[in-house]
Amino acid sequence: GRTGVPEAILCSRKTPTQLAAILAEARARGARLLLTRLDEAAFAALDEAARDGLDYDPASRTAVLGGAVPLVAGSVAVVAAGTSDLAVAHEAARTLAFCGHEALLVADVGVAGLWRLMARIEDIRAHRVVIAVAGMEGALFSVIGGLVAAPVIAVPSSVGYGVAEGGSAALHSALASCAPGVVAVNIDNGFGAACAAIKMLGVPAPAMVG
Amino acid sequence: GRTGVPEAILCSRKTPTQLAAILAEARARGARLLLTRLDEAAFAALDEAARDGLDYDPASRTAVLGGAVPLVAGSVAVVAAGTSDLAVAHEAARTLAFCGHEALLVADVGVAGLWRLMARIEDIRAHRVVIAVAGMEGALFSVIGGLVAAPVIAVPSSVGYGVAEGGSAALHSALASCAPGVVAVNIDNGFGAACAAIKMLGVPAPAMVG
Amino acid sequence: GRTGVPEAILCSRKTPTQLAAILAEARARGARLLLTRLDEAAFAALDEAARDGLDYDPASRTAVLGGAVPLVAGSVAVVAAGTSDLAVAHEAARTLAFCGHEALLVADVGVAGLWRLMARIEDIRAHRVVIAVAGMEGALFSVIGGLVAAPVIAVPSSVGYGVAEGGSAALHSALASCAPGVVAVNIDNGFGAACAAIKMLGVPAPAMVG
Amino acid sequence: GRTGVPEAILCSRKTPTQLAAILAEARARGARLLLTRLDEAAFAALDEAARDGLDYDPASRTAVLGGAVPLVAGSVAVVAAGTSDLAVAHEAARTLAFCGHEALLVADVGVAGLWRLMARIEDIRAHRVVIAVAGMEGALFSVIGGLVAAPVIAVPSSVGYGVAEGGSAALHSALASCAPGVVAVNIDNGFGAACAAIKMLGVPAPAMVG
Amino acid sequence: GRTGVPEAILCSRKTPTQLAAILAEARARGARLLLTRLDEAAFAALDEAARDGLDYDPASRTAVLGGAVPLVAGSVAVVAAGTSDLAVAHEAARTLAFCGHEALLVADVGVAGLWRLMARIEDIRAHRVVIAVAGMEGALFSVIGGLVAAPVIAVPSSVGYGVAEGGSAALHSALASCAPGVVAVNIDNGFGAACAAIKMLGVPAPAMVG
Amino acid sequence: GRTGVPEAILCSRKTPTQLAAILAEARARGARLLLTRLDEAAFAALDEAARDGLDYDPASRTAVLGGAVPLVAGSVAVVAAGTSDLAVAHEAARTLAFCGHEALLVADVGVAGLWRLMARIEDIRAHRVVIAVAGMEGALFSVIGGLVAAPVIAVPSSVGYGVAEGGSAALHSALASCAPGVVAVNIDNGFGAACAAIKMLGVPAPAMVG
Amino acid sequence: GRTGVPEAILCSRKTPTQLAAILAEARARGARLLLTRLDEAAFAALDEAARDGLDYDPASRTAVLGGAVPLVAGSVAVVAAGTSDLAVAHEAARTLAFCGHEALLVADVGVAGLWRLMARIEDIRAHRVVIAVAGMEGALFSVIGGLVAAPVIAVPSSVGYGVAEGGSAALHSALASCAPGVVAVNIDNGFGAACAAIKMLGVPAPAMVG
Amino acid sequence: GRTGVPEAILCSRKTPTQLAAILAEARARGARLLLTRLDEAAFAALDEAARDGLDYDPASRTAVLGGAVPLVAGSVAVVAAGTSDLAVAHEAARTLAFCGHEALLVADVGVAGLWRLMARIEDIRAHRVVIAVAGMEGALFSVIGGLVAAPVIAVPSSVGYGVAEGGSAALHSALASCAPGVVAVNIDNGFGAACAAIKMLGVPAPAMVG
Ligand SMILES: Nc1ncnc2c1ncn2[C@@H]1O[C@H](COP(=O)(O)O)[C@@H](O)[C@H]1O
Ligand SMILES: Nc1ncnc2c1ncn2[C@@H]1O[C@H](COP(=O)(O)O)[C@@H](O)[C@H]1O
Ligand SMILES: Nc1ncnc2c1ncn2[C@@H]1O[C@H](COP(=O)(O)O)[C@@H](O)[C@H]1O
Ligand SMILES: Nc1ncnc2c1ncn2[C@@H]1O[C@H](COP(=O)(O)O)[C@@H](O)[C@H]1O
Ligand SMILES: [Mg+2]
Ligand SMILES: [Mg+2]
Ligand SMILES: [Mg+2]
Ligand SMILES: [Mg+2]
Ligand SMILES: [Mg+2]
Ligand SMILES: [Mg+2]
Ligand SMILES: [Mg+2]
Ligand SMILES: [Mg+2]
Repeated sequence: GRTGVPEAILCSRKTPTQLAAILAEARARGARLLLTRLDEAAFAALDEAARDGLDYDPASRTAVLGGAVPLVAGSVAVVAAGTSDLAVAHEAARTLAFCGHEALLVADVGVAGLWRLMARIEDIRAHRVVIAVAGMEGALFSVIGGLVAAPVIAVPSSVGYGVAEGGSAALHSALASCAPGVVAVNIDNGFGAACAAIKMLGVPAPAMVG
Repeated sequence: GRTGVPEAILCSRKTPTQLAAILAEARARGARLLLTRLDEAAFAALDEAARDGLDYDPASRTAVLGGAVPLVAGSVAVVAAGTSDLAVAHEAARTLAFCGHEALLVADVGVAGLWRLMARIEDIRAHRVVIAVAGMEGALFSVIGGLVAAPVIAVPSSVGYGVAEGGSAALHSALASCAPGVVAVNIDNGFGAACAAIKMLGVPAPAMVG
Repeated sequence: GRTGVPEAILCSRKTPTQLAAILAEARARGARLLLTRLDEAAFAALDEAARDGLDYDPASRTAVLGGAVPLVAGSVAVVAAGTSDLAVAHEAARTLAFCGHEALLVADVGVAGLWRLMARIEDIRAHRVVIAVAGMEGALFSVIGGLVAAPVIAVPSSVGYGVAEGGSAALHSALASCAPGVVAVNIDNGFGAACAAIKMLGVPAPAMVG
Repeated sequence: GRTGVPEAILCSRKTPTQLAAILAEARARGARLLLTRLDEAAFAALDEAARDGLDYDPASRTAVLGGAVPLVAGSVAVVAAGTSDLAVAHEAARTLAFCGHEALLVADVGVAGLWRLMARIEDIRAHRVVIAVAGMEGALFSVIGGLVAAPVIAVPSSVGYGVAEGGSAALHSALASCAPGVVAVNIDNGFGAACAAIKMLGVPAPAMVG
Repeated sequence: GRTGVPEAILCSRKTPTQLAAILAEARARGARLLLTRLDEAAFAALDEAARDGLDYDPASRTAVLGGAVPLVAGSVAVVAAGTSDLAVAHEAARTLAFCGHEALLVADVGVAGLWRLMARIEDIRAHRVVIAVAGMEGALFSVIGGLVAAPVIAVPSSVGYGVAEGGSAALHSALASCAPGVVAVNIDNGFGAACAAIKMLGVPAPAMVG
Repeated sequence: GRTGVPEAILCSRKTPTQLAAILAEARARGARLLLTRLDEAAFAALDEAARDGLDYDPASRTAVLGGAVPLVAGSVAVVAAGTSDLAVAHEAARTLAFCGHEALLVADVGVAGLWRLMARIEDIRAHRVVIAVAGMEGALFSVIGGLVAAPVIAVPSSVGYGVAEGGSAALHSALASCAPGVVAVNIDNGFGAACAAIKMLGVPAPAMVG
Repeated sequence: GRTGVPEAILCSRKTPTQLAAILAEARARGARLLLTRLDEAAFAALDEAARDGLDYDPASRTAVLGGAVPLVAGSVAVVAAGTSDLAVAHEAARTLAFCGHEALLVADVGVAGLWRLMARIEDIRAHRVVIAVAGMEGALFSVIGGLVAAPVIAVPSSVGYGVAEGGSAALHSALASCAPGVVAVNIDNGFGAACAAIKMLGVPAPAMVG
Repeated sequence: GRTGVPEAILCSRKTPTQLAAILAEARARGARLLLTRLDEAAFAALDEAARDGLDYDPASRTAVLGGAVPLVAGSVAVVAAGTSDLAVAHEAARTLAFCGHEALLVADVGVAGLWRLMARIEDIRAHRVVIAVAGMEGALFSVIGGLVAAPVIAVPSSVGYGVAEGGSAALHSALASCAPGVVAVNIDNGFGAACAAIKMLGVPAPAMVG
């Protein structure tokens, strides 16, 4: 895209016919394309021609048209509080991979067991941008924000019930975080977090500007 | 009171005349009385007779009628995330003192600087009940809940702005905490947290029941 | 767990494969495990190996791996306002049983028929901690809070419609209760209420401290 | 009014000039008039001519133009949960008095002290309509609704803080009450509750209809 | 019931087994019983024995056990704004019929076509209590409240989309109505409105009291 | 302005210095300017030079710089439900006058007294666009929308308390209106309603287009 | 209809039997009728007789009874931000066509790619009324409102997730738009927007009035 | 701070005594300190000693202790939609200046006048990070996000009324933005946006990592 973010299609409300048309047009252009929010039933509903050459990944509910690019590791850590947050974390990681970044995925480090996070914190600190995914009360955002110097992109997940239903409690924790420098994207928006990370990585280094 | 909680008056909507009448009636009964939410202006608006023998404390906005009781330390720790949460923490501590419990007050241990909390965690662990007061995103509740075996009573404070305005973000963090065993009271309700702690301390020990 | 609460798995968003892996790992460790929010369809979806040795209870939607422990009665009363609140009440009781506490279950004592509650109040009062489950307007919390000296843990249930849809009306009643000492957990969180009760029962008795 | 309710002016947003004009016009017509939400400052701001013949009552923030009518007692009980709910209860009672009904006022009977309500319940039962005013969690509505055969008009009051701020918790308790036959009016609307009571009292008796 | 309202069972969250037990117990007692929120699938799921002697009405989703009582007409008008509000209106009418009141049902009189309401207003005025059911913006409550002297019980319905989704817009219109004397029950609560009407009809006439 | 709406300044958050600068710049350009939300204190805080040549109107809280234009009547009716809605209605009328339209102002026609509206409905119908201002439950929008063929621009006002506090109940009534063709602007936005009316009046007639 | 809007039936909550009756009655009257919110399953559920002569369009979920009228183009542009907003845009266009207006449909012009909107802006400007449909954050409303002189009717769509779930974020953007003269209808209400446009087109031109 | 963000004090709820103590302690340490949310009255309430050496700036409500550092321009653009958003924009700029970054401030470029933004877009594009401040409907975030390749940090401001009151409409626009890569901080949190920008600028350049 013109602003440095990947060309992507949000599939959640599109019919098989609409998706087939979009894929055909991209193939004609020779464009690479990332499909998000494509659940297994929606992928299965595509016909043979539409599915041709698509690399589908059920864990992230994404598909890639146009093949992979070489991956460079070491730039972005994606941290998920719990098992249920993994789908969103995978969406972020797949978006990064689409753009050539192999993310480090760190899972199951919710703050109720702080020692689990502490065991991984140096690995996380070795990265230039951190994406944190958490549902429920989202306390992970503030804890990580206070422990790393890198920018932290908080992705509230819709995992939760009662007052946490739908993800608003985690979102509010991200926004009201007492750890300065935490920024937030919409609930479940792993794709958007990865786009923001890519833009941040594109920021030229001080030496190149001064 | 009949259920083991202190006799208390919530002063926020009462006129000086109403408060004077309540105090006079309590003096006539020879009752001890705790007045809460009595700010300095409201205290100043009481006449001489009404103020007679009242022990007023501006930091907690409370007054005590009927004198102090001997204090026993070691039962309850009151932990405040930030300076602005101190008024609520003091309300809890004064309610406990009214009932004979000298609380340990631990302040300025917000999770954005985890090392500050860690420096005090053993002191906190030495107590039988923990009251935690935090505003903004209330991440403190989950972190403490994961670190101590005692019951944690979360008091969300109304300290915050934007999505944290009024305390609801902190309240939702308390309720959705991924640390099992955290319980919550209403926003800014230091008095209620102390009443709950007193009830918990009154629970007879296992040996006495079996 | 490190903080005295039972090791438990919230099953609501986990796949059969994920649950099987968790169970296998626990069996390998020789650990006891409590599974919550496991509805009948999810239990049926587990394969033979995963179900082996699981004690499943549909009323509470829980399963226990690793067998039962001896039960001691007399510590906790679980009170449910209506028939529809029973699933949540059973979740609390099963969590308590997992930890060795046999709860007294008192059902169908909503405040619209106060005499039904009054007929059971002495039984309830004989316990050291009270868990109250109510949906709709949650008036039960204040009424019980005013009648017993034990701490009352309010569990708002999502039973209700219109303004009570999802349980927020009952939650707000618990938090704003005019009966001091009532504490709340998240909507439908019977498990969390039981964890808090267990922590409260662990509080050493006054005589053991002084 | 054409529908049997008193002619009343809501003064909260009207200027002294507007109120003076309304009063002058009513005097010219020889009409009786009830002024509500007229706080002491607003009453003081009226000039001599406008105040002439007005019977002002600060406790209910109402004024009556055109004198009193003979009162009949025994029809309506107005029950207030706490001291802070009295202003709203007085607004209801004054509206009833404007129409010839002397209400029984029962105060300080919140459900956290059930025995106080029970001591007055027979007095309340002797009336044909019950108006109940409560803030905080509004548990009073369900308790009274389950104890009396008369229609219960719930008036949620804005007394409360945290989740009860502004009265919505009490309102939701009124609407979700498990006691069938409780009806609600808007928060703090003592005037509206009295109007509804008057309409109910105007319902012809069964014998007169059949 | 002890407070003059019908004995009723809210079936929405009960299993066929629970309903069968309740019905069997009522038959044993010889009690009449009203079942509400019993949709066609739930009725079909009852076994032969449970269905025996039940008078089921799909339009109102109610069933009556124990037979009908003689009906008297002329007391209550049930007015529905639109076709979609009829299920709630029928629930009210069936509850009234269970108690011996034959309601006048007036449908399709939404305020966007004021002439349709005006054509029926005299019929409505001939009744002692009016129940009004409306969704969307609920303007009907204020219009009727301004046209009849009888008490108006507003039942907001959950019919609507966008800002009216779930019925809260109609509920707020009922509560904020500028027509004094309108009272409200919970969204979709036709049963509760009928109970309130029955209590109002039970109010003895002035002559019988004085 | 480029889109045919008047050049206007929202003064509510601007300092006297900022307003003086804006006025000076407009005078230098020879531009006409409309100032809105300029309450009496803010107008008084302007210095002599800034006030020079300003036509200030306290009822609408607006000021006009650059003099009046000739007025044409007959295009727009501005209808206000109650006395308290007049400030917003005047803001609309002043904005229209700034652009050369003399509005018909119809006040005190709330739907609780339908006959008052009916007495004026032919006058209203004679206009090409109708602006309706109402607070509380906003039932006026649907009633007018069902009675006139002209487009109805609903302006919810913040007049109200309890559930109507801040104007959201009236806003939702406008949006959910069952009278097709009613459109809404933001709460209290009399200025925006007038701008929309001006745009509608600018729509060329059918004959001029075909 | 009496106010110049098309006779239409909202089918979403009606049974096949109810729809068949409405269609039969309209055929008997010889009336034209527009059916909205009739999804494919609901259309398929109608029997042969009911479907006879119906012109069904799945993209807009509408059906027309009574045949088409001649269309005139050039009056209304319907602009949709994204593919997912097309269903609502089509509902507006079909309503306009029912009344004789052929709308220009402009799709896929969301503001994240401003050049796409700019490429079509002159086409849009050539129309007398603009209907804009957008979900997510609804930024399109302000951008278009600042670029065209015609009245802009904003239709927020329910397309979105997280904070945009259900359409309220887009609705608030429409109402709070800093572009004066934008008006809003309810979420997804393409029908209502078209009705409003028709009323605006009916406004006689200045020359015809003066 | 340990995570690369400036040491700052949020002054809004602190007393003059508390602020004096914090300043004295920082002077003793020789630390530089940024004070935020210090309005003119709060600054004036500090005594001489506390104010000594403080550089106070009323436009941003900030003060700096410990002197300025040399500034480098060219890294961050701070864009404000309207005049009322300037206080928040200045808070961001002062925080950046405290850390050595001179921001470009671009004001009065709201999207209702798109040409004003377009006139400045190349200046904005020349920067490595963009902070955008907007209230009302916050459409600016999506428009800028679609025009620049740099990361965009959206700061919703509390400027607005009606549905935009308090800033939530602008916040939701930021989060639901259809321009990928926009991230958000809390309402009015100019300080936090600057901290995030500083963290992003600290990200080493691609060449330095590979
Ligand atoms: N700060 C407080 N927060 C909540 N409840 C309180 C507080 N102080 C006193 N109370 C309780 O409020 C009730 C007093 O209400 P009142 O009769 O209005 O004084 C008593 O039951 C007190 O236990
Ligand atoms: N305290 C009150 N609460 C609610 N409505 C009231 C109150 N007092 C008067 N009213 C009603 O408000 C309307 C008066 O509105 P207004 O014309 O603005 O004075 C009348 O219909 C009164 O019946
Ligand atoms: N449709 C209904 N809406 C509201 N309350 C109902 C309804 N039907 C029955 N009830 C009441 O709900 C209670 C039944 O609760 P349960 O014990 O769960 O059957 C009784 O108090 C009934 O009076
Ligand atoms: N304007 C502001 N908005 C948000 N956070 C701030 C602001 N100013 C300072 N802070 C942060 O708030 C914390 C200071 O809290 P306190 O200890 O109460 O002064 C520090 O972590 C600061 O980085
Ligand atoms: Mg989490
Ligand atoms: Mg905090
Ligand atoms: Mg209940
Ligand atoms: Mg109360
Ligand atoms: Mg309706
Ligand atoms: Mg009104
Ligand atoms: Mg969009
Ligand atoms: Mg703006």
